[in-house]
Amino acid sequence: MARIASFLTEAGGWIVEADYHSDPDTNWFFTRQEVRADSLPFGVEELRTRFAEVARQLSALSDWSIIDTGVKRRVVILVSKEGHCLYDLLGRVHGGELDVDVRAVIGNHTDLADITRAHGIPFHHVPFPPGDPEGKAAAFAQLSQLVDAAKPDAIVLARFMQVLPAGLCARWAGRALNIHHSFLPSFVGARPYHQAHKRGVKLIGATCHYVTAELDAGPIIEQNVIRVDHGDSVADMVRKGRDIEKVVLAGGLRAHLQGRILVHGNKTVVF
Amino acid sequence: MARIASFLTEAGGWIVEADYHSDPDTNWFFTRQEVRADSLPFGVEELRTRFAEVARQLSALSDWSIIDTGVKRRVVILVSKEGHCLYDLLGRVHGGELDVDVRAVIGNHTDLADITRAHGIPFHHVPFPPGDPEGKAAAFAQLSQLVDAAKPDAIVLARFMQVLPAGLCARWAGRALNIHHSFLPSFVGARPYHQAHKRGVKLIGATCHYVTAELDAGPIIEQNVIRVDHGDSVADMVRKGRDIEKVVLAGGLRAHLQGRILVHGNKTVVF
Amino acid sequence: MARIASFLTEAGGWIVEADYHSDPDTNWFFTRQEVRADSLPFGVEELRTRFAEVARQLSALSDWSIIDTGVKRRVVILVSKEGHCLYDLLGRVHGGELDVDVRAVIGNHTDLADITRAHGIPFHHVPFPPGDPEGKAAAFAQLSQLVDAAKPDAIVLARFMQVLPAGLCARWAGRALNIHHSFLPSFVGARPYHQAHKRGVKLIGATCHYVTAELDAGPIIEQNVIRVDHGDSVADMVRKGRDIEKVVLAGGLRAHLQGRILVHGNKTVVF
Amino acid sequence: MARIASFLTEAGGWIVEADYHSDPDTNWFFTRQEVRADSLPFGVEELRTRFAEVARQLSALSDWSIIDTGVKRRVVILVSKEGHCLYDLLGRVHGGELDVDVRAVIGNHTDLADITRAHGIPFHHVPFPPGDPEGKAAAFAQLSQLVDAAKPDAIVLARFMQVLPAGLCARWAGRALNIHHSFLPSFVGARPYHQAHKRGVKLIGATCHYVTAELDAGPIIEQNVIRVDHGDSVADMVRKGRDIEKVVLAGGLRAHLQGRILVHGNKTVVF
Repeated sequence: MARIASFLTEAGGWIVEADYHSDPDTNWFFTRQEVRADSLPFGVEELRTRFAEVARQLSALSDWSIIDTGVKRRVVILVSKEGHCLYDLLGRVHGGELDVDVRAVIGNHTDLADITRAHGIPFHHVPFPPGDPEGKAAAFAQLSQLVDAAKPDAIVLARFMQVLPAGLCARWAGRALNIHHSFLPSFVGARPYHQAHKRGVKLIGATCHYVTAELDAGPIIEQNVIRVDHGDSVADMVRKGRDIEKVVLAGGLRAHLQGRILVHGNKTVVF
Repeated sequence: MARIASFLTEAGGWIVEADYHSDPDTNWFFTRQEVRADSLPFGVEELRTRFAEVARQLSALSDWSIIDTGVKRRVVILVSKEGHCLYDLLGRVHGGELDVDVRAVIGNHTDLADITRAHGIPFHHVPFPPGDPEGKAAAFAQLSQLVDAAKPDAIVLARFMQVLPAGLCARWAGRALNIHHSFLPSFVGARPYHQAHKRGVKLIGATCHYVTAELDAGPIIEQNVIRVDHGDSVADMVRKGRDIEKVVLAGGLRAHLQGRILVHGNKTVVF
Repeated sequence: MARIASFLTEAGGWIVEADYHSDPDTNWFFTRQEVRADSLPFGVEELRTRFAEVARQLSALSDWSIIDTGVKRRVVILVSKEGHCLYDLLGRVHGGELDVDVRAVIGNHTDLADITRAHGIPFHHVPFPPGDPEGKAAAFAQLSQLVDAAKPDAIVLARFMQVLPAGLCARWAGRALNIHHSFLPSFVGARPYHQAHKRGVKLIGATCHYVTAELDAGPIIEQNVIRVDHGDSVADMVRKGRDIEKVVLAGGLRAHLQGRILVHGNKTVVF
Repeated sequence: MARIASFLTEAGGWIVEADYHSDPDTNWFFTRQEVRADSLPFGVEELRTRFAEVARQLSALSDWSIIDTGVKRRVVILVSKEGHCLYDLLGRVHGGELDVDVRAVIGNHTDLADITRAHGIPFHHVPFPPGDPEGKAAAFAQLSQLVDAAKPDAIVLARFMQVLPAGLCARWAGRALNIHHSFLPSFVGARPYHQAHKRGVKLIGATCHYVTAELDAGPIIEQNVIRVDHGDSVADMVRKGRDIEKVVLAGGLRAHLQGRILVHGNKTVVF
């Protein structure tokens, strides 16, 4: 810690925000430093070069990255029919709260094409034929081509409803964020609100996590819950749940894009 | 209670939802009954005629209304520059969650004209010249004409930022809903997040209330809060607060339109 | 509904609180009426007799009970070493918030004997020898004798840490309340905070439920959650979780004793 | 920051936890470092001597303290009739969660004498005669003598219900913690639940703050809220509010004793 702080201080860096965490189980040490770019006498590339030397001295296992907030981060959003998460994200982009470059919205249905285009964002329709494994594989091939062409910093599954194949999970590891409409690990998989209604829980939840090959089992970024009672039908749960899905996804995406999330094993450190 | 239940039961009414509340301080009794229209052998007008007789027998002070959910309720939204509440409401309308007829959006700035029109909703620009009482009075006259022409069941001040004159408060009593960005009665008036930051509170809030002549003092419909800490600047509070403003306003509007809110004195019963 | 309301009204009953719920899936109808005893011209036994006739007319399947709040309800509390739930309950009894007759506290350790006796409540020590099935069976026999002798309206497993045999679950069905230190159905069974820490969840929870033969799978009465982050060790989670365990258990017990909980299948209606 | 981290690192200190905050409004910089005592080659007094030199070099305005967690912190608790906060604190002490030395409980009534003594803690009865300013002044003199004799690190007003005179506020500045039963700054002063009921708020709150001469206006340490509705009487609010009062006070006290709270002007940094 002292080594990193000294490096930044000696270079004249003005540290805006600093966070630390050490994990007693694995003896890993995590930190995030936010430095004013104009306080450093060199640019971001030179910073990367110099810091690489510091990191090397600290440990051969060091894993680090430097994000330049002066460059807009690139996002691709995958959707299906339900628009609440997309609406919410577009509203945040429009209001300046989420200062990103949405390169494309890709949907397996066209329901959300109009609202996307009203924001001047390209919408691509990639249908996923149900019960047709080959058709699906082809659709995923097309999808991944569209996504990769955008070189996204984040691939947001905003209620996308299709399970990504293991190959894409691996290729997009640490960049693909999903919103699952339950308080994981409860109610993995399909129709979580139906499962919640059947079990008679008194709170329903939403979970934003990184996508991994095992369904709904990736590192959890953010979660929240909302109260329900015996009077709430599945439809009421769906409606109430949307309000937390939106906030949990937007919060997770924001943290991801600001480099606040460090993944370690199957867990996250969120600074 | 038995009298109302008997009336509905004898008419064959299928009661979907029933709520009761008696106020020990004032001895008033409140109830809301939701009845399936097709379970009654007559229409809504006949129901009103018949129920009027029941109400007369119950008490000369009875105050009641019957809402026909088969008729879309009419809404006018007043906005300024900040779009998060408008985006949120339009998203809910688009997704079918808020099944209303948004007759118009009226703004004292044009920032939100495009998103409104993208939804096929008329946007009216009514500028309010700062520091010009006569100009403001004229603007309010124009505004009220536009609003009243729409015969709205709800007038939503979605971060409108102009204080309604007493005359409009009276004319729209029980129909005009405001979202105030604080946990009332804390931080009445201008710049509540600045006030909250100065006081060093650990939670910030939002309040949806009916508009009355006294600023931010009308009957409270719904409130919520979100956690902040010493690291949150005013700008952070503004950002975090938006997420509860949206949910609190949408929840309040939904309850209002479903006839779930009974105003009594300066308080609400929310069924 | 009208039938029950008419019966009470005709008898002159002053209804303090009334709740209704109809379940569209099973077509069951649920209600709870709270009536001022001194508003009725007869006593509770006569009320039971008369209401039995009403219930019979309503449906052969009717299931009902009448609680006399003038009679203190009887409670037995089962504990192990951890005292936070017991302390909390005793504090509520002492302060008059929980107006019950705690007949006994039974512990498989003696750690909580002193605080129990300081409240003038008998403490029974029933050790459960680990790894000795016969010894455990004998202990459960002794335990059930002590419990049944108290004729309790509620048997509270306040972090008791022993799994009740199926026979006791059946005998105490609808009267035995457990507090499980997770947000069920996540993290069933032993060491839920360890499980939660391993999975990296961002909220931990507590669940109060009726005890059934299947472990941690009984009807849920009440749940709540509290936020944790990457900096929280298992010990931190244990500490934070206690604060919600206490409140969730006390709330569930209160609702149970006031007859606010109607169990239907594996779910609860909580009025 | 680098200077402090270097000092600790050069001394071989193992930093368990580190927090930083810089206030852009005042340009103050705040930090808390938690170091394993056995990782340093010298004792706490030597640490204080050496760090004083570092602090002097950093700024003439530096304000710092070093807490030795090997020494139990001393607490005095002031109470009146309501026992829920005292019960809660004693339960936490008994369970080892709050590892402190409660030197005394002082009450202006004797209601809580028994439970205090059952824990082996001295209880002092100091009556405050109502409507007798001289009698009250004498009582405060006796109270302050008892408190000061205990040399407490924290003086906890656990629903004490007497307003401290300005002199005591000054003498105990930064050590006297109060729990106020509202979400400050709403409902300052007497009977906040009555005020909340009258205003018709939908959430009630509790606030833990440092005591200052201005009533209920000191630096806020911690706050929380709980939902209420139109059906909640003042008595219901009192009951529900207790659950958050307890948790908010205990959380604030814990943070205070661990040196996690830095007061700056009328605000707190809580690490």
